[in-house]
Amino acid sequence: MAKFLLNGRPGEVLPLTDRAVHYGDGLFETIAVAGGEPLCWPQHIQRLARGCGQLGMTPPPAALLRKEAEQLLPPSGRAVLKIVVSRGSGGRGYLPPGGTEPTRILGLYPWPDYPADWYRHGLACTVSALRLGHNPALAGLKHLNRLEQVLARADVDGRGFSEGLMLDVDGNVIEGTMSNLFLLRGTHLITPALDQCGVAGIIRHLVLERALEWGLRPHIASVRPEQLPEADELFLCNSILGVCPLTQLDQHSWPAGPITRSIMDGLAADGQVAGP
Amino acid sequence: MAKFLLNGRPGEVLPLTDRAVHYGDGLFETIAVAGGEPLCWPQHIQRLARGCGQLGMTPPPAALLRKEAEQLLPPSGRAVLKIVVSRGSGGRGYLPPGGTEPTRILGLYPWPDYPADWYRHGLACTVSALRLGHNPALAGLKHLNRLEQVLARADVDGRGFSEGLMLDVDGNVIEGTMSNLFLLRGTHLITPALDQCGVAGIIRHLVLERALEWGLRPHIASVRPEQLPEADELFLCNSILGVCPLTQLDQHSWPAGPITRSIMDGLAADGQVAGP
Repeated sequence: MAKFLLNGRPGEVLPLTDRAVHYGDGLFETIAVAGGEPLCWPQHIQRLARGCGQLGMTPPPAALLRKEAEQLLPPSGRAVLKIVVSRGSGGRGYLPPGGTEPTRILGLYPWPDYPADWYRHGLACTVSALRLGHNPALAGLKHLNRLEQVLARADVDGRGFSEGLMLDVDGNVIEGTMSNLFLLRGTHLITPALDQCGVAGIIRHLVLERALEWGLRPHIASVRPEQLPEADELFLCNSILGVCPLTQLDQHSWPAGPITRSIMDGLAADGQVAGP
Repeated sequence: MAKFLLNGRPGEVLPLTDRAVHYGDGLFETIAVAGGEPLCWPQHIQRLARGCGQLGMTPPPAALLRKEAEQLLPPSGRAVLKIVVSRGSGGRGYLPPGGTEPTRILGLYPWPDYPADWYRHGLACTVSALRLGHNPALAGLKHLNRLEQVLARADVDGRGFSEGLMLDVDGNVIEGTMSNLFLLRGTHLITPALDQCGVAGIIRHLVLERALEWGLRPHIASVRPEQLPEADELFLCNSILGVCPLTQLDQHSWPAGPITRSIMDGLAADGQVAGP
């Protein structure tokens, strides 16, 4: 069971008037906790603040979020810290009410313990039938409007897969239902552009930032499904999963290759992901 | 202030684990109450049940919703009854948990009392800068992922308008931020197609259904902005607003015309809208 703080106080319930409930009017961050420490804390808090800016909300002060997180963090071990920030309580109607204080929900959840085999031999995926819609105004944000991911996840799970790739309405490859995707081809490191849809993940950003140091040439580009079989290696990433090889997609397969391995090890060594 | 029932019991709070909070994983209905009676009740309940089916949720029994609504309805007068149905409580992660019971939130809100002038002389609108993204899997549904409407509403309100039209990412006219749109040209009654985005409103459906009886030829079609100036009359509709002339859009204007007036009167006479 999760433990929650609502606006800094232990609690299990939210006012029914909150705009998260009615409109998904807010954002969230999912943060890995290892050795009692939240990983990539500055990156998560910066993304949250940028997202608040894009939605016209005042971001909660970083120091306040940190203080509240400290109240929940375990002294040691792994866990998942989730921060939800909504626009706050408001009347009926879409119009954001003036002068509302954003709501802060912090929750501590058990670490998911993904199978070690995922990291060793890679994940098998399918392609979700659910296509991501285009919306430049919301693209990249980790906002609370997540019905597409819910439906995609139900779709791939129903077909026996733990993760699935999502295409957009034009048939471009965008991401996994809960992860970002990278392709390796020679020294080229390619990840799909997220200007029309998708979530711009923290680990995706880290991998792009550190690519040159690993001798890789990073590209953000349109990716078509027919490019995937031409890749040498594929991997998925998110804050909790870290980096994980994608080794099977329907009838195609790839090795759990050496470059993916060295990226996994590099991020884990620097404490940026929790690792397997 | 609103009065709420959570799963049939008076309450003001929702468990923080509810999937409405985290993913907007649910649907809603906004129902006009007049003379103590919820208008178009069967249509709202049928749409809710269809939406639940599309999201893979079990709809709450109609009789239960009615019983709960009766607990909130005022003995007389006008009010707004909002029903929110979420997938229920669930762990962290997009995957809908098995065996959860949907959450029912019923709220009774004050009637908004829109200015009488809107009905007499019509509404002035602008076009929102926020474009509606395409997603056929969610199009038409009155789901809880409403950030596009929130941002559009903030945009048009910030420019001094009470309502704004929304285009989709391809530039087609789709709807208002909180209403559906109709164009009249001769005896042709045209409303934008909602197969890619938009909310398929109850009053929109009623107007289409009754058009022939009013001597009008109903069309559901793509609508381009340049078609609007060619219309004889325009009107907006939703369950609370009823039917309201749109008489100004940026530099264009239209009369609060006789056909719009007869549609308003026709629906009000049959108790399908509350009227001005």
